[in-house]
Amino acid sequence: MMLPSPRPLVAAILCLYLGSSLLLAVADAKVRHYDWDISYQKKSPDCFEKLAVTVNGEAPGPTIYATQGDTVVVTVHNKLETENTAIHWHGIRQIDTPWADGVAGVTQCPILPGETFTYRFVVDRAGTYMYHAHYGMQRVAGLNGMIVVSVPDGFVEPFTYDEEHTVLLEDWWHKSVYDQATGLSAKPFVFVGEPQSLLINGRGIFNCSKPVPATGTCNTSSPDCGLRSLFTVVPGKTYLLRIGSLTSLSSLSFEIEGHSMTVVEADGHYVRPFVVRNLFIYSGETYSVLVKADQDPRRNYWATSHMVGRNASTTPSGKAIVNYVGNDPQMTPPTAPTTGPPWNNTAIRVEQSRAIVAHPGYVVPAPARADRTLLLLNTQNNIDGHIKWTINGVSLHFPATPYLVSMKHGLTAAYDQRPPLDSYDLMGHDISAPAPTNGTIGSPVYRLAFDSVVDVVLQNSNMLNNMSETHPWHLHGHDFWVLGHGDGKFDPTADAWRLLNVKDPIMKNTVPLHPDGWTAIRFHANNPGVWLFHCHIEAHVFMGMGVVFEEGVERVRRLPSSIMGCGHSKGLH
Amino acid sequence: MMLPSPRPLVAAILCLYLGSSLLLAVADAKVRHYDWDISYQKKSPDCFEKLAVTVNGEAPGPTIYATQGDTVVVTVHNKLETENTAIHWHGIRQIDTPWADGVAGVTQCPILPGETFTYRFVVDRAGTYMYHAHYGMQRVAGLNGMIVVSVPDGFVEPFTYDEEHTVLLEDWWHKSVYDQATGLSAKPFVFVGEPQSLLINGRGIFNCSKPVPATGTCNTSSPDCGLRSLFTVVPGKTYLLRIGSLTSLSSLSFEIEGHSMTVVEADGHYVRPFVVRNLFIYSGETYSVLVKADQDPRRNYWATSHMVGRNASTTPSGKAIVNYVGNDPQMTPPTAPTTGPPWNNTAIRVEQSRAIVAHPGYVVPAPARADRTLLLLNTQNNIDGHIKWTINGVSLHFPATPYLVSMKHGLTAAYDQRPPLDSYDLMGHDISAPAPTNGTIGSPVYRLAFDSVVDVVLQNSNMLNNMSETHPWHLHGHDFWVLGHGDGKFDPTADAWRLLNVKDPIMKNTVPLHPDGWTAIRFHANNPGVWLFHCHIEAHVFMGMGVVFEEGVERVRRLPSSIMGCGHSKGLH
Repeated sequence: MMLPSPRPLVAAILCLYLGSSLLLAVADAKVRHYDWDISYQKKSPDCFEKLAVTVNGEAPGPTIYATQGDTVVVTVHNKLETENTAIHWHGIRQIDTPWADGVAGVTQCPILPGETFTYRFVVDRAGTYMYHAHYGMQRVAGLNGMIVVSVPDGFVEPFTYDEEHTVLLEDWWHKSVYDQATGLSAKPFVFVGEPQSLLINGRGIFNCSKPVPATGTCNTSSPDCGLRSLFTVVPGKTYLLRIGSLTSLSSLSFEIEGHSMTVVEADGHYVRPFVVRNLFIYSGETYSVLVKADQDPRRNYWATSHMVGRNASTTPSGKAIVNYVGNDPQMTPPTAPTTGPPWNNTAIRVEQSRAIVAHPGYVVPAPARADRTLLLLNTQNNIDGHIKWTINGVSLHFPATPYLVSMKHGLTAAYDQRPPLDSYDLMGHDISAPAPTNGTIGSPVYRLAFDSVVDVVLQNSNMLNNMSETHPWHLHGHDFWVLGHGDGKFDPTADAWRLLNVKDPIMKNTVPLHPDGWTAIRFHANNPGVWLFHCHIEAHVFMGMGVVFEEGVERVRRLPSSIMGCGHSKGLH
Repeated sequence: MMLPSPRPLVAAILCLYLGSSLLLAVADAKVRHYDWDISYQKKSPDCFEKLAVTVNGEAPGPTIYATQGDTVVVTVHNKLETENTAIHWHGIRQIDTPWADGVAGVTQCPILPGETFTYRFVVDRAGTYMYHAHYGMQRVAGLNGMIVVSVPDGFVEPFTYDEEHTVLLEDWWHKSVYDQATGLSAKPFVFVGEPQSLLINGRGIFNCSKPVPATGTCNTSSPDCGLRSLFTVVPGKTYLLRIGSLTSLSSLSFEIEGHSMTVVEADGHYVRPFVVRNLFIYSGETYSVLVKADQDPRRNYWATSHMVGRNASTTPSGKAIVNYVGNDPQMTPPTAPTTGPPWNNTAIRVEQSRAIVAHPGYVVPAPARADRTLLLLNTQNNIDGHIKWTINGVSLHFPATPYLVSMKHGLTAAYDQRPPLDSYDLMGHDISAPAPTNGTIGSPVYRLAFDSVVDVVLQNSNMLNNMSETHPWHLHGHDFWVLGHGDGKFDPTADAWRLLNVKDPIMKNTVPLHPDGWTAIRFHANNPGVWLFHCHIEAHVFMGMGVVFEEGVERVRRLPSSIMGCGHSKGLH
């Protein structure tokens, strides 16, 4: 699976140029058609009945299976009654199809009820990816799923296994997303609160007898919820688990009781294998791990997801069963479920982040230095009574007209023309104190020179409650090199640059910014289009925690009229 | 108030030609500007907290006050996060502005989140009107209010009063509209059920201690709900109450304990005054009644709304207080609230419907005969497992492209080209039996010859449960003459036509079709545009109970590009 190459050198060359690996596979490339109805359905994933936004009646939606080089065509029929949608293909770089990235307000007008929209894109690199709604907080309503892109026949991966399975991790609220969003926009601010449950492959457990703010129909014996076998293993065999997290808020630790996991892939890139008992995974990330069925086969084992980074003692852990063949798949393991690592041990999480480097045979050399460096400070601000996240003082608000259309067509009235700042008050800002009441709400764009190399240092700082949180940042349209994670404030005048890893950095599309620290990434601005870069916590991006990059929009081909029709793009074609 | 004229003849001439009355007032005409943010807010109109769609934070929204001939300009900012909207100005004929009728799918594309849309129209006739969302079932989420159009200075109405007040009647559910709509679309069908409360001017009473399917935050002592004084009266004075119903489902009886009401206006037309103890009012109707404060002034009195036509014993009546000056406005009347008429006495309701005829001084002569007659049979059908309403076998489904745009621009692929039927199987259909499993879902249009006179006989029949219900039908863009209400099946070959009232029929925009009966109306197809005609019960029109009329679309001026952008209208301008 994933990056196909028997020889490291070939692999490296393959990776150097976007899309080139596609050429090797194109002879066998297939078109994979999917036809999706998006509709509301009553679902009880954790036993509590709630309206979910579903794909063909299911939440999560079906896993998309394709082979590297294939073209995926998803025809989306919006059958919601009054609500629009847009679907993002998370981790797919959309080379030559920037209008298919599925971000309402950035790459397309949303799909209206009654309309049909077709996403067509090439999956140019093998690996584990995901999809989800990218419109308001709609993803949290259930519209998400996984994408598995296999290596072409004949390519040999740098590891072996007998079977593979997907594991999608989520957190789940009983309040509707409309309710959540209303609170986040309200004066005074109402936070979404901790999730009621953690789901593993769309299934969780909620104690129906527990009083909660919004109760409703809850049935612990519903066949839709409760403990279930994730998969069945045969003693001695090795399994590849493709694990993805599309949590709304939660950073997670995933483990399988008694079993080690060898991490071999991250966001579609081979990593130098390392062994963990528990995998820390942040919203927007995917990992593949190898698990060998090497434990006592007379019993089953717990697979669990635990929240970390937040003291969410009210949220029960996600639980599922790993079944050893011959046992009843529903047989509860005889041991108590694992409890996970301490929620507030940041150090072990940073340590694991640092362990993720490129597989020696698959290092994609990073450019030696950047043409431009952005130091992006996040602060939580009170703007006119609303609590917002800002990046260098600006809280991102999506314009009514998608950037891709307005920038390609010169609709300068459609977004803020004043460029955002490349840096912040490095000397003056104390990251261990909350930001003062300031900041603005806007829709500016970082215009990047095409083909330039860009460094971004994400700088964490304390929120209004004087705490610092984890923020997994996701970049659309690219993978980036993860150059390093550090504590405190990044000092660009000091030795910090020398300490960054340019030797074997992993490439990813999502990376955590840890509490009280910084994360440095580098990317090549060589994919014409307009791309969102944002915290993947749904409440945070909703509160403005993101920036927009433009590069080579003049090189983008004629835009399809299907992405237009809203805001200033009415009448364009 | 309302139609201005001291002399009947002048009044009649005024009414004969659409818009001509406007000329009299135009010298003093003002432009009335409103600026509305549409957003979700937590509201507790009946003590149960629920997300409502609000106008400037309120549900119901503000009353629009204008004078005949004024231009009303409402700038709507959609601040819902993922949901579109469109607002209909119920009873305003939109002469020369058919694109401002506010029906998503018929007269405009919906307004997307982040967009601003401006409605601009002339209120050409005095009277009592309403506004509400007209998109999916969104109206039921709270976006509605009243419009009061006064007669110009110097005009004398055919009655006198000291003060006026508005009374808006609603029914209210605790389930969200998304939940309601999902059930109506589901297999098997899930009906919305009876409302949890009836609201009077946005306020109702719910017993929070009562178990309900979806409980939540409920606080009987919330200042948002409970008993409140509707208005304060001075003994001996006379009050004009402008009463409107925007119920989702319920037919109502409204009364003020101990006080007679003299009905003087219906849907903006003067009626031959008649006195009632209780006013039957159907969703979409407005009435003005005169009430004299002629009772014992040492106490307060109940104003109540009761459901009729459905056996909704679980729904408490709407209650408010009419306060006699000097008493505490919150003082509960010493008597038990009135209980209303028997829910199933159809005869007294038909009788009141028949009492509503034009004021002798304000008769608008109906044309002697129609150029075309439509016999529209409603049946409830099971179509592919979905329960739908059909009219002459077709269940109306709004196309993604608004009819006004597609018909004006010749986008024939955007809606069904096959015309619907002018009649049904008169001989074969037994209205006392449910329809067989048949019918189709479609989007056809009745194309009416411009300036022709059209008769419509609405024919009720039994539902799948073998009962017959009340359906208040509302015509957009026109008033119609109400020619008669009858029992059983209308027989166009018999004397039925001779028995219709062409002498002094009232003009209305909404009229009830009573159980097991028929209702005949006549209208002049002289308002260029595309107009919806539908049952005003929100669940019923959602299930397809409506038809679309086109007349003189070629005479419509160039359409504003602001109504385009969806479906086949992408790229038009």
